[in-house]
Amino acid sequence: MVEIHRGPLAESLHAGHAVICDGRGQIVQAWGDPDALILPRSSAKMIQALPLVASGAAEAQGLTVPQLALACASHQGAPVHVEAVTAWLADLGLTDDDLRCGPEPSRDKELRFAMIRDGQSPCQVHNNCSGKHAGFMTLTRHLGAGPDYVDPDHPVQKAVKEAFETVTDRDSPGFGIDGCSAPNFATTMHAMARAMAWYAGAAKRDDTLSRAAARLVEAMMAYPELVAGEGRACTLLMRAAREPVAIKTGAEGYFIAILPQRGLGVALKIADGATRASEAAFAAILVKLGVLDAAHPDVKRFLNPEIRNKRGLITGEIRAVL
Amino acid sequence: MVEIHRGPLAESLHAGHAVICDGRGQIVQAWGDPDALILPRSSAKMIQALPLVASGAAEAQGLTVPQLALACASHQGAPVHVEAVTAWLADLGLTDDDLRCGPEPSRDKELRFAMIRDGQSPCQVHNNCSGKHAGFMTLTRHLGAGPDYVDPDHPVQKAVKEAFETVTDRDSPGFGIDGCSAPNFATTMHAMARAMAWYAGAAKRDDTLSRAAARLVEAMMAYPELVAGEGRACTLLMRAAREPVAIKTGAEGYFIAILPQRGLGVALKIADGATRASEAAFAAILVKLGVLDAAHPDVKRFLNPEIRNKRGLITGEIRAVL
Repeated sequence: MVEIHRGPLAESLHAGHAVICDGRGQIVQAWGDPDALILPRSSAKMIQALPLVASGAAEAQGLTVPQLALACASHQGAPVHVEAVTAWLADLGLTDDDLRCGPEPSRDKELRFAMIRDGQSPCQVHNNCSGKHAGFMTLTRHLGAGPDYVDPDHPVQKAVKEAFETVTDRDSPGFGIDGCSAPNFATTMHAMARAMAWYAGAAKRDDTLSRAAARLVEAMMAYPELVAGEGRACTLLMRAAREPVAIKTGAEGYFIAILPQRGLGVALKIADGATRASEAAFAAILVKLGVLDAAHPDVKRFLNPEIRNKRGLITGEIRAVL
Repeated sequence: MVEIHRGPLAESLHAGHAVICDGRGQIVQAWGDPDALILPRSSAKMIQALPLVASGAAEAQGLTVPQLALACASHQGAPVHVEAVTAWLADLGLTDDDLRCGPEPSRDKELRFAMIRDGQSPCQVHNNCSGKHAGFMTLTRHLGAGPDYVDPDHPVQKAVKEAFETVTDRDSPGFGIDGCSAPNFATTMHAMARAMAWYAGAAKRDDTLSRAAARLVEAMMAYPELVAGEGRACTLLMRAAREPVAIKTGAEGYFIAILPQRGLGVALKIADGATRASEAAFAAILVKLGVLDAAHPDVKRFLNPEIRNKRGLITGEIRAVL
């Protein structure tokens, strides 16, 4: 799907799977193997947040639209994200110590360097998943459940599994433990794209689950800077799009898009897990669909980026070759 | 060649090419395509340093064995490396500003954090290639050539190209500009493995080029901590080996080994360029050859590492599947 060019040759190559699916669950277009089993990783965050909204927990806690966006986010731990999650935890009467995602250095260079200068260690709230975990903790509170909310047998994760299997319309063959310690359920490429198409059509349906899904999609589209952060692919591509779209990446080369105006869902997995390739290939698919303009500077930087070396010289480029 | 396991599935997969070659240039064993065109990147550093020694420049400058090891190194910019290269530059009457490799943050966490705390920017001497560049500058001095020693038309790079084509026994179809701005010549997997076998047999030959090659191999094997650094694959695998071996990695998933006792050369390229895969696959090849012991802790950490998440939980593992 993607070639890494340097000098006279394509030095490295990335293969992958991608599926575009419509609201009836039909494949519109596919690359690679639509039946490939995958872990959607953080691309499934809007599914992991579904029980939070569908249960009434979000409403009971008075969660705001930005908080719903953070519940679906892989944020970069910039001050805007860290402060919002810290305030959310305080609203719940909880602290950083109650999180189960583990500490992670902020991906915001200014904050990361400031913390190093001040001798501060990364906290759990800096973890890119801390918003999702604040969502889990809000649901935990609503359900009156225990504090170990990432345990696969915890009511929160049982609710996530049920939601996951409902929206993918398929039993999950199992789960892996994610970087943030939450279970991440396996499914196929086709089923993940189908789930995203289900999200894309949610605003036109009136059942509880669909209404909850529509609220999460709206929140992601309204606050792209909370879903990832300045300079990051999800944020920039959502902003650059010609039509409303929710975009979410996941570890190991995953990406999804939810296209409400078309009722389409898109899922992509780079087989080797490389982010440089998933960004380029995903931008290329959205350009092909007409969602993104290849000439937009924030599209070009992911679609066909130059590779620069340590002196700033252009030494190669990344080319999507779908 | 390598599977990344998490939960119920192999979540990501890495393919690649590898060749084991003997001193007659014959392939002993191969995976993937031995005729694949590649850039060996930093795995070619002992070739890029060959004219430095063969020309007499190293002797004229009185270079030490550690300096020859540094000329072949992708060091991690730890104090031991930075101080040695800085002293070498001073011996030449040159400074950091004369380097052409570009600045790079030290990969030694303690030094990197100390520099951030002190508000210091990375220098060129911290660049993992600064030892190779000090070698280039030593040869430049010897040849009375101009300061832009990374220009493909500079006498140093012309000498490198000639050496490269001699030891690979093949015309290069072109070059890419490397991360450190030096030209990096293309060749095939087979030709690179053949060149490494030529190095492996160098100590048994008496021509000028072979004597120079033997000195570089000896230097790499004598100072594994200078070739990479504490905790790094090249250093730890050279130390762990049951027999003398020179091991060198390169960007985009490259690795080579020079096995003097057997007269064998080994080259590996992971097609997608991933380091996690090149380390695992290369360790597996050297285990298969009996050079490394799979049970050695410093072999296990590359051959079959556990993947741990931000809370330190084991969430998966990397498995070489040659």
